[in-house]
Amino acid sequence: MNIIVQKYGGSSVADTTKIKKVAAKIRQRIVNDTKLVVVVSAMGKTTDKLLELAKEISDKPNPRELDMLVTTGEQVSVSLLSMALQETGLRAKSLNSFQAGITATTNFTDAMIQNIDASKITNHLKENNVLIITGFQGITETNEVTTLGRGGSDTSAVAIASALKSPCEIYSDFPGIFTTDPRIFPKAKKLKHINYDEIMEMSRLGSNVLHTRAVEIAKKFNIPLYCAATFSDEEGTIIDSKEIETSVVTGMSIMDKQTRVTIANLPMDHKTVNQVFAFLGTKKINIDMISIIELKNTLNLSFTYIEEEADKFENAMVQLQEKFQECEILYRHGDCKISVVGLGMRSEEGVASRFFKTLEEIPIELVTTSEIKISALVRKEYKDKAVLALAKEFEL
Amino acid sequence: MNIIVQKYGGSSVADTTKIKKVAAKIRQRIVNDTKLVVVVSAMGKTTDKLLELAKEISDKPNPRELDMLVTTGEQVSVSLLSMALQETGLRAKSLNSFQAGITATTNFTDAMIQNIDASKITNHLKENNVLIITGFQGITETNEVTTLGRGGSDTSAVAIASALKSPCEIYSDFPGIFTTDPRIFPKAKKLKHINYDEIMEMSRLGSNVLHTRAVEIAKKFNIPLYCAATFSDEEGTIIDSKEIETSVVTGMSIMDKQTRVTIANLPMDHKTVNQVFAFLGTKKINIDMISIIELKNTLNLSFTYIEEEADKFENAMVQLQEKFQECEILYRHGDCKISVVGLGMRSEEGVASRFFKTLEEIPIELVTTSEIKISALVRKEYKDKAVLALAKEFEL
Repeated sequence: MNIIVQKYGGSSVADTTKIKKVAAKIRQRIVNDTKLVVVVSAMGKTTDKLLELAKEISDKPNPRELDMLVTTGEQVSVSLLSMALQETGLRAKSLNSFQAGITATTNFTDAMIQNIDASKITNHLKENNVLIITGFQGITETNEVTTLGRGGSDTSAVAIASALKSPCEIYSDFPGIFTTDPRIFPKAKKLKHINYDEIMEMSRLGSNVLHTRAVEIAKKFNIPLYCAATFSDEEGTIIDSKEIETSVVTGMSIMDKQTRVTIANLPMDHKTVNQVFAFLGTKKINIDMISIIELKNTLNLSFTYIEEEADKFENAMVQLQEKFQECEILYRHGDCKISVVGLGMRSEEGVASRFFKTLEEIPIELVTTSEIKISALVRKEYKDKAVLALAKEFEL
Repeated sequence: MNIIVQKYGGSSVADTTKIKKVAAKIRQRIVNDTKLVVVVSAMGKTTDKLLELAKEISDKPNPRELDMLVTTGEQVSVSLLSMALQETGLRAKSLNSFQAGITATTNFTDAMIQNIDASKITNHLKENNVLIITGFQGITETNEVTTLGRGGSDTSAVAIASALKSPCEIYSDFPGIFTTDPRIFPKAKKLKHINYDEIMEMSRLGSNVLHTRAVEIAKKFNIPLYCAATFSDEEGTIIDSKEIETSVVTGMSIMDKQTRVTIANLPMDHKTVNQVFAFLGTKKINIDMISIIELKNTLNLSFTYIEEEADKFENAMVQLQEKFQECEILYRHGDCKISVVGLGMRSEEGVASRFFKTLEEIPIELVTTSEIKISALVRKEYKDKAVLALAKEFEL
C-alpha cells in the first residue's frame, strides 16, 4: 500500500464548491494501490468567526474552552470533504483527533503533538481509499482537546506523514516557495527546490507558506514535502534534505511591524543580561536581533519584538523598570527586518560583505547573522529600496 | 452534593447575548452545595445550517459523516456557555460525549443512549460548580460519533439525570405544557402538572415541548421533570408519576399533514394483514390509525402516515402493489388528527361518547383509542371547528 499525506488549507475548503473541487483533485490521485491521508484546516474564516464569538463572551476566554470551541471547525471540514469524496465513488472516512489517536500536550491553544498511532490510521485505511483527519488538534492523556496554535494543520500533516513514513504534500493558495514574498516584491521567483534549513530560516522570518514546526518535524524524520497551489497544475516546490546550490542566496524574507527596544543604563554586571532574558523568558515574549553594548560602566541592550506582542511586552517592561530603577527604556515602532537565506552562504565567503555593500546607503539599525542567514533591521522608509537592491544583487 | 440537571434548547443559546443570560440564570441557581449539569443544544439554527452544507455536497450524505458534521454544533454551544459561566465567577467545564462518557448505539442519525458513566460526571463535578455537556449525541464502542435524532438533547438531559438520580429541568421557548398547542388554539391553558403517561401520549401526538423518548426514560427511572421558559420567571409544568385528576381530559393534540391510505381489494386471507404490516415494518415506515374492513371476500385496509415520509412510503407501495397485483391503493393528503388525552379517561366512563357527540357534525375518517387517549382523523376544513368544540366540551 502506497500512502501519500496531503494537507489542504482553509481557503482551499472555504465553501462546498471548493470542497468538491478538492475531492475531484484527490480522486485523480487514487490510482493502483495508492491511498491518501488528507489533513484539512477549518473552512475559510471559520476559526476567526469562532474566536469572535468567544470574544463576545469574554475578553480572556479560558484556553481549554477556546480549544473545545475552535476544534469544531476542522470536524466540519473533514466530514464535508468525506461526503464529497464518497460522491466521487471513493471509500472515504473522516476522523477527529479522538478517533485518529493523535495525542498532544496539555498546553491549550499552543500544544505539541506527542504521538501518532500509525496502526490506528493504517487500520482505518484498510477499508478506505482516503482518510480525512482534522488538522491543528490533538487530545491529551486525560481526553482534553488541544490545538497546536495557528498554522498547526501543517504540523499535523507532517507529523502524520512521519508516523506513516510517507511523503507529504501541502496545498494552499501559494503556488510554492518564492525567493521572497511576491506580494511585496512582484518579481520574486518560485523555487523548484529548497532545503529544510533554508525554508526553516525563511518560515521563522515570516514567510507564511509553511509553519516552522512542520518543517522541523519533516527534517527530523526526513519526510520530503511538496508545496503547491490547490487549484492549479503549476509545478510547486520540493523541500527535502538535498543541498542543491544553484545560487548562494536562495531567498529573502521581509517582516514588517518590528519594534526596536533599547534598554539603556543597566548596571554593568555580568548577571544583568541573563536576568533580563530569563525574566522575558518567563513572560513568554519572543525577542530577536539582540545587541549588547557596554558604555561607560553601563550596559545597553537592544532587541526587537513584533508589534502584536506589544501589550504583553510593555507590561513586562514596567516590571523590569521596577527591578532596574536607573535604566531607561526607549522604543521605536514600525521597523522592517529584511533577511537573506541560503545554504550557499556556508561555503561561499563574502556574502555578508556583498549584503552590507548593497545596503551601503541605508542606515542599518540592528543586525543578526547565522550560518545561512543575514538579517538587518531598517526603518520602514528604507524598506523598498533595500528589498530591490538585495533582490538585484542576489538575483532573487 | 445536590445535583440538578438542566437542559437549554437551541433558541435559548441562539447568540452570545442569550448565552450570557443563560449563564446568569444558572449562576443564580448555584447556592450552598448545589451543583448543576447543563445539557445544551446547538445555537439557534446551527444544525439546519450544517445540514444545508451537507445537502450542497450530496443528496444523500453518508449518515456517519452527517453525525460527525452536526455534532460540532453542540460542542460550540457548550464551550461558549462554559466561558460565559466562568465570567460569572463559577468553576465551569464543558464536556463532549467522548469526555462525558455517553455511549450510544451505532444507528447513525437516530442512535439510542446505551450507557452514561455517572462516576465520570461526578468526578468532573468535584472540581466544578457546573458541567456543560453536549446534548443530542453519544459515542459508540468503536469511538464513532452518533446523534440521537432531532430533539435528542431532551433525551440526553433526562438520561444524564437518570444516571445521576437527579431532577431534570427543561428550558425552552415554551413556558410549559399546555392543554393544547397555543399557536393553534390561543385560549389553551398551561398545566401546573401532568403525568408521564399523559405527556407521552401528547408528545407522540406532535406536542413538541418534549421528546417522547425523554419522557419514557424519565418515567422508567421516575425522574421528575420541570418544563418552563428560559427567559421568564413564569411558573412551568411539573411532569412526574403522580396522578392528579383535576379534569378527565388533560390536553388535546393536533397533528396536521396526515395522509390517509386505503388499500382496497386485498385477498381475504388471515395472513395478508400480517404480511402487509411486516413488509411496512421492514421499510421502517410509521403508520397509525389502522382500520381493517372485510368486504365481499376482500380485505380493505386504511391507515395514516405523515407527509414527510411520503417518498419512502410511496416507494414501498409500488413494491406492495407488485406483491398483491389486484389491490387498489388510494391516498388522501392533508388530513388532520385531533386527539384528547387524560388519565381520567381510564376511570371515567362516557368520555368517548362525549367526544363523538361533540364531533357529531364533523365527518370522522378514522379513529383510534387507547386507555387514556381518543384520536380522530378529520379533513383539514373541519379542523378549527373540531378543535373549538372539543376545547369547549373538555374545558381545555
